[in-house]
Amino acid sequence: MKYKKIFSALLLSAGLIVSGSALAAKIDKPEPLNSQEQAAKNGKQKPLIIQEQGSFAAGGTVRTNAGKFDPDKAYETTDGQTVHGDHASVLYQIPQNAKQYPMIFLHGYGQSGRSWSTTPDGRDGFQNIFLRKGYGVYLVDQPRRGQAGQSTEDATVPSASQDQMWFDQFRIGKYPDFYDGVQFPRDEKSIDQFFRQMTPNIGAFDADVITNAMTTVFEKTGPGILLTHSQSGGFGWTTAIKSDYVRAIVALEPATYMFPKGEAPEAIPNRYNGLMGGKFEPVIVSDKDFEKLAKIPIIIYFGDNIPKEASTSIPQDFWRASREMAYEWADVVNKHGGDVTVVDLPSEGFRGNTHFIMSDLNNAEVADHISTWLAKKKLDKK
Amino acid sequence: MKYKKIFSALLLSAGLIVSGSALAAKIDKPEPLNSQEQAAKNGKQKPLIIQEQGSFAAGGTVRTNAGKFDPDKAYETTDGQTVHGDHASVLYQIPQNAKQYPMIFLHGYGQSGRSWSTTPDGRDGFQNIFLRKGYGVYLVDQPRRGQAGQSTEDATVPSASQDQMWFDQFRIGKYPDFYDGVQFPRDEKSIDQFFRQMTPNIGAFDADVITNAMTTVFEKTGPGILLTHSQSGGFGWTTAIKSDYVRAIVALEPATYMFPKGEAPEAIPNRYNGLMGGKFEPVIVSDKDFEKLAKIPIIIYFGDNIPKEASTSIPQDFWRASREMAYEWADVVNKHGGDVTVVDLPSEGFRGNTHFIMSDLNNAEVADHISTWLAKKKLDKK
Repeated sequence: MKYKKIFSALLLSAGLIVSGSALAAKIDKPEPLNSQEQAAKNGKQKPLIIQEQGSFAAGGTVRTNAGKFDPDKAYETTDGQTVHGDHASVLYQIPQNAKQYPMIFLHGYGQSGRSWSTTPDGRDGFQNIFLRKGYGVYLVDQPRRGQAGQSTEDATVPSASQDQMWFDQFRIGKYPDFYDGVQFPRDEKSIDQFFRQMTPNIGAFDADVITNAMTTVFEKTGPGILLTHSQSGGFGWTTAIKSDYVRAIVALEPATYMFPKGEAPEAIPNRYNGLMGGKFEPVIVSDKDFEKLAKIPIIIYFGDNIPKEASTSIPQDFWRASREMAYEWADVVNKHGGDVTVVDLPSEGFRGNTHFIMSDLNNAEVADHISTWLAKKKLDKK
Repeated sequence: MKYKKIFSALLLSAGLIVSGSALAAKIDKPEPLNSQEQAAKNGKQKPLIIQEQGSFAAGGTVRTNAGKFDPDKAYETTDGQTVHGDHASVLYQIPQNAKQYPMIFLHGYGQSGRSWSTTPDGRDGFQNIFLRKGYGVYLVDQPRRGQAGQSTEDATVPSASQDQMWFDQFRIGKYPDFYDGVQFPRDEKSIDQFFRQMTPNIGAFDADVITNAMTTVFEKTGPGILLTHSQSGGFGWTTAIKSDYVRAIVALEPATYMFPKGEAPEAIPNRYNGLMGGKFEPVIVSDKDFEKLAKIPIIIYFGDNIPKEASTSIPQDFWRASREMAYEWADVVNKHGGDVTVVDLPSEGFRGNTHFIMSDLNNAEVADHISTWLAKKKLDKK
């Protein structure tokens, strides 16, 4: 199906509010209902029983301006004044009779905690799905992103027009075409909602800042299961290295793998990294850091439309390289006594998954696969 | 109490993560519990029964780069590519057996939807309090803020050191001193959490962009009750002018009032606006727009430590001017058949409220005052 035609319709309303009946015609799933409509619908789905919910900031730093603070000049000068920034912001919910280990969700590039909430077409995301399974959920906005937007450094934030590139990179299809059988809604409203999940980085991207904040998140949650997506895969590993509270990691299509010196595979040439003159590189860490990754169960998921051999498609060739190194990484970690499983979803009968496995049309089935694995690892006890 | 000493302790950890037992010593309220601790606590508080919850984007625009999009060059050039931005981002929860009208919460300057969530000292904010009263709640991040961070314009975001100024402006005290009897937690951890609620504007502040997005939020929620805080008070009025779905407005310490031509009072001199050589100005709108504000019940709340006469304190003099104009505005709207009530909380026995009435120590009592008013206006029906 060509997406172009739908998109032209959207562009007609540029400068206006994108909504209304003309666009609504192709909607598969209803919008969130208002209270009145919801009342009519009550009883059709099982309510969530939430024992506790709220939000908090975790980690971060305090920057103090030079000079001495003068209480009588607080409006005239910032001398000696402070700014609190570089923390993570976390929304959490604990269901009644919760399991022992909560799930801590960390979004990928250009995303926020909303990655795990309602899907673009209005279904339950992993937040609600795992709440219904009895897990406490913590949705993180990493430092300098979303509701954790306050940086301790000045920032420039370009408004980059790259929707079409992301459509490709996230393996929805080759814009404006969808992949055949892709597990992604094709109506214009859902695509609009999907693009509006993106929210930019505010300030420099700093791995230490993110890892420090995530470590403090785990001090607040206590021992738990870390779910990562895409770019945050790397922060999953660094958080597990730094914190003793990471009991397991579920990594959806990560793109970073950490090896001890002397055991890393060759960098993998691919068309994406090749654009910048590079290859898909292994990351080298100390033996001590690496050993921590061999101490917890880890499962890595890859979706569909990732070729087995080198491809001319830039995004497909990149994810081919990442999956290839994931298998090599699993071998090395497991040789050190680790417990890493790589799941190629199509090989297990899940067809059409994009890079956004947690909001794909079959996300509930993938969630079942994850919870079956957690049960096998005895991480689903109350 | 001097806050300075506590703050110096915080600064020792600048560049590190602010946490740990040294700082925890003075905490009044516990941190969010992990699942295990929560399990032990279960039954001590009534769980929330949530019929439906999720998130969505509302409104916004699409900007298209010049040039023609070439599917084979999506990674090489942004020609013809789009960016979706300037939408609001909304988290919502509908309790079981919800009341007819949900509450839509719009944060103030430098804040996000988290304004209404957990208080800095870990108590229920207005989100949970009004859920427990049976209202659906919608927490908005306005365009170019928080999880709605994607602007269609490039942005520069300075990391401004102004914590001490905000402490004063929000009438917690005159930094480092707290006002006597102020309804604000005084422990270092709560102050740290409070400052970390702030998240900057990403891109130009544009009243039309915000009003358009809010109008679309109301198309999604259906008829509802709008709660505003501080700067968003102005967007409460503009949203009610533009949307027919605003059934009532609860404005916590607004700072904008809209009058028809010929009926505006004199601008009010005060020390804050005087810093920029100005006064507290009434905003003039068309008769037609103004009349819409006379069609719905409106209640405006002001906290404590606002003097009756001109003051040498910059923040106190500003809020004195705003409250003064609020009374004048109520008179004009009510003369046109409107229904505006201004509540001076100290006059009704509520002492010590800051500018953050929704998270003050007595926020549950203020929420009761609001729900009593809603009941009187027959807006609390199921």
